[in-house]
Amino acid sequence: MSFAADTAITRDDEGRYRAVIASGWDIGGNANGGYLLALVARALADASGRPDPVSVTGHFLAPGKPGAVSIESEVARVGRRFATASGVLRDASGKPLLQVLGSFGQLGASDAPERVDAAPPELPPPDACVGMTGGEMTSSFRQRVDLRLHPEDAGFAQGTPSGEPRVRGWFGLPDDEPVDTLALLLGTDSFPPTVFNVKLPIGWVPTLELTTHVRARPAPGWLRCVFTTRFVTGGFLEEDGELWDETGRLVAQSRQLALVPRPAQPLSESSS
Amino acid sequence: MSFAADTAITRDDEGRYRAVIASGWDIGGNANGGYLLALVARALADASGRPDPVSVTGHFLAPGKPGAVSIESEVARVGRRFATASGVLRDASGKPLLQVLGSFGQLGASDAPERVDAAPPELPPPDACVGMTGGEMTSSFRQRVDLRLHPEDAGFAQGTPSGEPRVRGWFGLPDDEPVDTLALLLGTDSFPPTVFNVKLPIGWVPTLELTTHVRARPAPGWLRCVFTTRFVTGGFLEEDGELWDETGRLVAQSRQLALVPRPAQPLSESSS
Repeated sequence: MSFAADTAITRDDEGRYRAVIASGWDIGGNANGGYLLALVARALADASGRPDPVSVTGHFLAPGKPGAVSIESEVARVGRRFATASGVLRDASGKPLLQVLGSFGQLGASDAPERVDAAPPELPPPDACVGMTGGEMTSSFRQRVDLRLHPEDAGFAQGTPSGEPRVRGWFGLPDDEPVDTLALLLGTDSFPPTVFNVKLPIGWVPTLELTTHVRARPAPGWLRCVFTTRFVTGGFLEEDGELWDETGRLVAQSRQLALVPRPAQPLSESSS
Repeated sequence: MSFAADTAITRDDEGRYRAVIASGWDIGGNANGGYLLALVARALADASGRPDPVSVTGHFLAPGKPGAVSIESEVARVGRRFATASGVLRDASGKPLLQVLGSFGQLGASDAPERVDAAPPELPPPDACVGMTGGEMTSSFRQRVDLRLHPEDAGFAQGTPSGEPRVRGWFGLPDDEPVDTLALLLGTDSFPPTVFNVKLPIGWVPTLELTTHVRARPAPGWLRCVFTTRFVTGGFLEEDGELWDETGRLVAQSRQLALVPRPAQPLSESSS
């Protein structure tokens, strides 16, 4: 049981990828979107011959359940630095679950000009943060990733949301499994929704679309993460994420568009 | 000559769309990315039977030149509220120029909870802003859209960049053509790059990927726009955009990932 093993793929003779949605990556029965995105991205990285996702977008079509899946891939272009590929994840019955479009490359040192107008989030050390593998928050997914929430952002679980649509914390994988550029895709979708920290009648916020930009391969160690929302409007909200490695380098930036159901619709994780 | 006419599509018997990259939508010979994205999105909206782009991602594969093009489309899923489709724009030789993945719907009134932690950019009235159709900035593209830059953000053209990686201004279409949700895709990619306003040796910033979320149909009139960049790092930069309509409503949010070439590479618009 590891992220790498649970996102393993094999390529068949017709160029189609076979994989398994492993059990335990779900919240409430549906596999985590970042996990599914990483699974497809691994296939597309293989198909495109480039190891690192650079910009990957997934549109979520139907919930993923544990079991055999296939990934059809098509490489649109192979350039000098980047290759662009698309893929569809299907369950055993052929039903499409997730459609992905991404550009892949090999990330490394860059000698281009740099300017960063932001800093990584300030966090207490991981052991002084709130782990999400104990108590009410326990779900099998919470044992597949190692999340440590900033204490100021973890009160929603006890009914005391911070009032700010923000979630900060550390992300890692259990058993010291390294976080590679594919695992960053998981990291961008592993934290509780930002809006759990505001007093809006919002529970379940299904993701319509998630785009992650990967800027660099992370250094070994924890990732400092921050997710914020500025616009809950029109029946949608965006959630913007930043993942920074232990050297203080931004390694990934993400944005997802999620649906804001009307209050009448059933709540899920937040109401448990 | 209008945005609507220049993004017209026809569907042939095999379900493929035919269109023409009209002349005049280029900067330095290459068609504007937002224009190409709108062209493909129009085809995908038609294919999916939904009028409005909700989340659209394009990966730019090769420059588009004026002339006949085709768009292959595939509808992955048609749901109750949204349909998801992908498309590839090809030139007359079959070369892929742009690959698009998007979800489409019918945007209208929403009774979901709302919370907005931002305000539209403060701008002088359009006539007190800096038009981009006169002087050195004139290009045929600058006559296809009506941009009025905030005077504080327009100094780069005279060699006095503001120092902030930000561009604010009004967006409209000439001759009072209404800005619909497809034209918003154009609006997210029409302004000069944010980094023209900082003193970095950066000129040409080719877009690798552009994602736009459309939250609402804009009210008639000008759009207030702001584009910012926080992370120039790893050989990439993001450009985040917000488009607000005259009623003060956020109608679109965009993010693009662009390449930051090394200083040795040739400059383009900024150096002209």
